[in-house]
Amino acid sequence: MRFFVDTNELNAGISTVVKALPARTTVSILEGIYMKAAGNTLLLRCSDLSIQIETVVAATVEEEGTIVLPGKLFAEMVRKLTGEMTSFDVKKNTASIESGRFKTTLQGESGAEFHTMSSVSRDLTVTVKPDALKRMVRGCIFAAAQDDSKPILTGALMEVDGNGVTLVALDGYRLALRRESAIEAKGEASNMIIPARSLLEIARVLPDEGGDVSIVFSRTHIMTDVGDTNITARLMEGEFIKYKQILPDSHATRVRVNRKDLLEGIDRVALMARASKSNLIKLTIADSLVNITANSEIGRSVEDVEASIMGSDIEIAFNARYFTDVLRVLDEEEIFLDMTNNISPCVVRPVQGDGFYYLILPVRIFSGM
Amino acid sequence: MRFFVDTNELNAGISTVVKALPARTTVSILEGIYMKAAGNTLLLRCSDLSIQIETVVAATVEEEGTIVLPGKLFAEMVRKLTGEMTSFDVKKNTASIESGRFKTTLQGESGAEFHTMSSVSRDLTVTVKPDALKRMVRGCIFAAAQDDSKPILTGALMEVDGNGVTLVALDGYRLALRRESAIEAKGEASNMIIPARSLLEIARVLPDEGGDVSIVFSRTHIMTDVGDTNITARLMEGEFIKYKQILPDSHATRVRVNRKDLLEGIDRVALMARASKSNLIKLTIADSLVNITANSEIGRSVEDVEASIMGSDIEIAFNARYFTDVLRVLDEEEIFLDMTNNISPCVVRPVQGDGFYYLILPVRIFSGM
Repeated sequence: MRFFVDTNELNAGISTVVKALPARTTVSILEGIYMKAAGNTLLLRCSDLSIQIETVVAATVEEEGTIVLPGKLFAEMVRKLTGEMTSFDVKKNTASIESGRFKTTLQGESGAEFHTMSSVSRDLTVTVKPDALKRMVRGCIFAAAQDDSKPILTGALMEVDGNGVTLVALDGYRLALRRESAIEAKGEASNMIIPARSLLEIARVLPDEGGDVSIVFSRTHIMTDVGDTNITARLMEGEFIKYKQILPDSHATRVRVNRKDLLEGIDRVALMARASKSNLIKLTIADSLVNITANSEIGRSVEDVEASIMGSDIEIAFNARYFTDVLRVLDEEEIFLDMTNNISPCVVRPVQGDGFYYLILPVRIFSGM
Repeated sequence: MRFFVDTNELNAGISTVVKALPARTTVSILEGIYMKAAGNTLLLRCSDLSIQIETVVAATVEEEGTIVLPGKLFAEMVRKLTGEMTSFDVKKNTASIESGRFKTTLQGESGAEFHTMSSVSRDLTVTVKPDALKRMVRGCIFAAAQDDSKPILTGALMEVDGNGVTLVALDGYRLALRRESAIEAKGEASNMIIPARSLLEIARVLPDEGGDVSIVFSRTHIMTDVGDTNITARLMEGEFIKYKQILPDSHATRVRVNRKDLLEGIDRVALMARASKSNLIKLTIADSLVNITANSEIGRSVEDVEASIMGSDIEIAFNARYFTDVLRVLDEEEIFLDMTNNISPCVVRPVQGDGFYYLILPVRIFSGM
């Protein structure tokens, strides 16, 4: 294999695909970047077996071929190259690379050994605005489980039907649900569970604005093309939690409150809770006020936030972070908080429409707190 | 004690003094911020016993007094306050603080318990440009020892005499020396050992430009005033290494080389050395070139940098980081490298003048590397 490429384009391509480099793996070849020179392009690919990212850059190819180079070292080297062009000459899985006055020989592995995800059959194709998909992912993914005690909860459920796309993530303490309309959905209505990390990488590759994006699903994979870049990820197998059963169907108290005022108030008061490591805040909802308090052995903080209250007064306590996580991903000026009693979840929902729905489980408190 | 202050000014003052908050301490009161309201100012002070930073902010004082408040929590709270003014009402070491709709009560400790460094007798006063002092500190402090195996080397030696100010730091593998002229020096010529952290904090508080700065020394302390802020630090006791004895008095090879080309070349080549965790680079100096090489089990990198060579050819190896640490703090376009043989230190010095002098110890290599 022999080719040369523009160094900046090579660097941009590598920066894109290394997002799929596994942090640690027992399969050493996956720690590499797969390169294939053919026609007038260089294809770059990384994979950790659950997500694969590939992209192409223009190249002048004098001899076609493939190789896998040590990912971390090769990516760092390319980032530091200053020669305008970089040339590669590969013989017996050893690459001789030159750029400017810098030369390196790098021991690689055979490209034939690299695991490649097969192309995805187009059972379902959903076309969305890139910013809508980004908003859904950002608005949900923080609620996915961080640990593996219930592995299925480290993914998010995507439901596609005639009404659009719904994304749901939950970890047993909170639930996040976002809905966006789809521009087009071709294929059967379906539910897929996508690993949180793969969704984040897909959202990261999407442009902030610009043309619509098509997401393709097979029974086992999700795939999308953005410009010259393709991301393919494995879906998770198993049953997601039947979340609709846990959504409350009524409330005794509805609070309409300014989101930013509530977020900043909780942030200030919660510092006191953090001093005692409990992170517990109490909300007392009465007299057109949300009164936020927190105690610790070194003091007590309190802040009032003005609100419209419909229904009964209530005292209810939360882990401050579960509340601020939700308030922080929203852009709305005002929100509704719906509560039933101090041991049932609080629902955070929009004043208009049904674009999101968050559940936050309260913490039981004893009177006198 | 009862007073109120502008919240932004309070926040700025606290940000300045918390630099001296100890990370961990067995003396709990030192984890606090000392406050003294008197006249029409609020004085703020933090100390870890080796450095003390204090500043004043304008305040409307209704009742004078002192208190020590929990440093980390109080500083974080003030950073989040949005009320224009913040009021304090302190009774029996408990502070009631209000800003906007936020209220907190914070248990403090008696101001009388706080350790305060006594005022520094003016045995020696050196007046310098702030940027000269910053340049000296930045150019030296990286070479001070990081660990406590020889505690005196965690400080830097400052020599003040008729020629100006010299700062020296060394850790057994490299030595850094910077000279700057002083605008004025009043008092006896003297040598002081200043803890690296204290020098960094002093440099950080200095403005980037602006009026001259006076540094005051007693036999035990260094002190400087910058605007409303005062920093006082304890000097280190003991003998510094007699560094002049280890400076080479001749060389067999002198290389004149572009600093940036050499730095970037070493940076690129050293990635290969890092892959084998040795971090070792070899310089082959001959034929008007500095040839940089590094090997590991997965490959070999090489780069040539043009240079003017006076004297013998030489092959010499270094820990790459010790070399790049030096090249990175310099601004000069070209530098001299002076070497004697491959087991004696390399001297990095300016092409003109004697503003700096760096020693880097080589690593012994066996032929065939």
